Amino acid sequence: MSNYPFNPVTKALPATVPFVGPEAQERARGRPFKARLGANESGFGPSPKALEAMQAAAAEVWMYGDPENYDLRHALAAHHQIPPENIVVGEGIDGLYGTVAQMFVEPGTPIATSLGGYPTFNYQMAGRGAAIHTTPFVDDKEHLSGLIELAKQTRARLTFLANPDNPMGTWWDSGAVLEMIAHIPGGNILCLDEAYCDFTPMGTVPPIDITDRRVLRFRTFSKAYGMAGARIGYAIGEASLIKAFEKVRNHFGVNRVAQAGALAALGDQTYLRKVISNVELARERIYSIAAENGFIAIPSATNFVAIDCGKDTDFSDQILAGLLERDVFVRKPWVAPQNRCIRVSVGTDEELDLFAQALRETMAAL
Amino acid sequence: MSNYPFNPVTKALPATVPFVGPEAQERARGRPFKARLGANESGFGPSPKALEAMQAAAAEVWMYGDPENYDLRHALAAHHQIPPENIVVGEGIDGLYGTVAQMFVEPGTPIATSLGGYPTFNYQMAGRGAAIHTTPFVDDKEHLSGLIELAKQTRARLTFLANPDNPMGTWWDSGAVLEMIAHIPGGNILCLDEAYCDFTPMGTVPPIDITDRRVLRFRTFSKAYGMAGARIGYAIGEASLIKAFEKVRNHFGVNRVAQAGALAALGDQTYLRKVISNVELARERIYSIAAENGFIAIPSATNFVAIDCGKDTDFSDQILAGLLERDVFVRKPWVAPQNRCIRVSVGTDEELDLFAQALRETMAAL
Repeated sequence: MSNYPFNPVTKALPATVPFVGPEAQERARGRPFKARLGANESGFGPSPKALEAMQAAAAEVWMYGDPENYDLRHALAAHHQIPPENIVVGEGIDGLYGTVAQMFVEPGTPIATSLGGYPTFNYQMAGRGAAIHTTPFVDDKEHLSGLIELAKQTRARLTFLANPDNPMGTWWDSGAVLEMIAHIPGGNILCLDEAYCDFTPMGTVPPIDITDRRVLRFRTFSKAYGMAGARIGYAIGEASLIKAFEKVRNHFGVNRVAQAGALAALGDQTYLRKVISNVELARERIYSIAAENGFIAIPSATNFVAIDCGKDTDFSDQILAGLLERDVFVRKPWVAPQNRCIRVSVGTDEELDLFAQALRETMAAL
Repeated sequence: MSNYPFNPVTKALPATVPFVGPEAQERARGRPFKARLGANESGFGPSPKALEAMQAAAAEVWMYGDPENYDLRHALAAHHQIPPENIVVGEGIDGLYGTVAQMFVEPGTPIATSLGGYPTFNYQMAGRGAAIHTTPFVDDKEHLSGLIELAKQTRARLTFLANPDNPMGTWWDSGAVLEMIAHIPGGNILCLDEAYCDFTPMGTVPPIDITDRRVLRFRTFSKAYGMAGARIGYAIGEASLIKAFEKVRNHFGVNRVAQAGALAALGDQTYLRKVISNVELARERIYSIAAENGFIAIPSATNFVAIDCGKDTDFSDQILAGLLERDVFVRKPWVAPQNRCIRVSVGTDEELDLFAQALRETMAAL
């Protein structure tokens, strides 16, 4: 493809990317998974009200969605008790990261993040030529002061933190995050990924400060709201920063059915609380299953659990292979030492039964 | 917002963009439109089979869509009788243009297009810093040899042609387009937007040549398939060019419900033919309504009609205002001399009745 007129950034990008979906694995295996516990989706599904709203909105899919996402943005504003001017809705957090990259990154722009952190942030930044600088996790947590040091040393334009983190499920309390924010160097913006914030204990999520020019916060309907396939999320930030998204975002990019579903999902906080409670129970169940096999589960504030298999990545690879072979889709962290773990998303009781059995059989076979 | 660390391209972009949806107009007016004939959507809606598929898939929205869009890509391959390696599915043509811009554009990259052509292509290119060069329409048609001359003079990396064109609805036959393609200079790729190709007469759409490295073709489920709100489209091109999209596209970006709907819609060609036939009848109806008011409709090969109001843009502005006031949403071309026209999308009989009445009343009042 060398004689196509790609720009230098695209020319230099790797030809292959690590995004292999469970469907691709199913096609390669020749049979479906019985438990889908690898993508941190919500097997509990969306609110029945959201489902109903999406089914009704499907009849209106001949119309483009409202490019201003007005109804949803205003409902989110009421929900968070902030003005709608501080919210931009986009095609999931991944889509918003694409927009953020377009706004801030040029070839060579330094970015600070954790080694082994959420990969799609890096993918979107690298896709615009960013220089990705990393600092390791410490004790399976993103290293807040290390990230600040890195941001200073590299004069990073953006710093990434997921709280709670993916793939480890660990988290920092609000005080620690606020302390980090207080130390963000000038000319840097913290991209604070709060995809999993609905699952966290009280005191984890810092209060929203719409005057804070140092932080962009990212939320999604993919996790607790059970709408990963809808591709809808939002960012919260200072109003003039949010307004800048208007310059570059794909204005008609959000699916109309997703808009209707998200609005209804947001309106059903009773269902959300039930899901959160189900997720807590399922996490405990995964902790127990881990313990039954002699493993230590890393306490999680998300809808997934990293299980420390106690040895190296070869060992956890073997366990992963055993689970996949037994039709249970799970994944594992991608760098050492976190890759000694496997990462198991919560699911229904039936799915966790399958996981428990597959893990037992795998360990017996090893 | 000047002290945010935006890249220079974003800093230089205009703060406002021309994407005002009908919903925003409805909110400003304080009442809904009665006929939605301004966004070239399909009031005939999607196939009942697509609707059914979307309603069923809504229950699976807790899962991310297949990042490979495997089923749809393979169905499209069979439909077009080309290998799936020549097709990439994306978040509508607008979303694909964002990806194309990311692949090819860097600050200053020259782009050749028509003055007053489809604006979102320009928006996505300018969003990455492209230098947009334009050549005027001639006789209300995009000027093929003018575009080639412009591409040569400016050493453009990408050239844009919509066939049929939006906003005028005019078109070139296959021979003329093939002649244009034969003259594309080296180092240039023609982005051939065929969003409206399903509505064209025989002999308009050039045969697909998957070996041709000079052309990327863009198709959508937004128009004839009636799924504008679903945000799903695809590009066709030489395999190594299509493969390059993998480097930068948002792999999990397509809505799962849209994937299911598009697959079902593609499978219902009987319904598609019915829509195309309805669109032809509705176009004729719009031609008649134009004539009844002493206007000349420009023959269209799309699901909309540009009506030449015979005077300048002030006059067509007045007509547009009269229609909007009478609850009929239409739009008009954005540059002279095309902006002497109003642009009316086809719709159901009821909507065209409302349009006819509103136009009659408007002309009586002027």
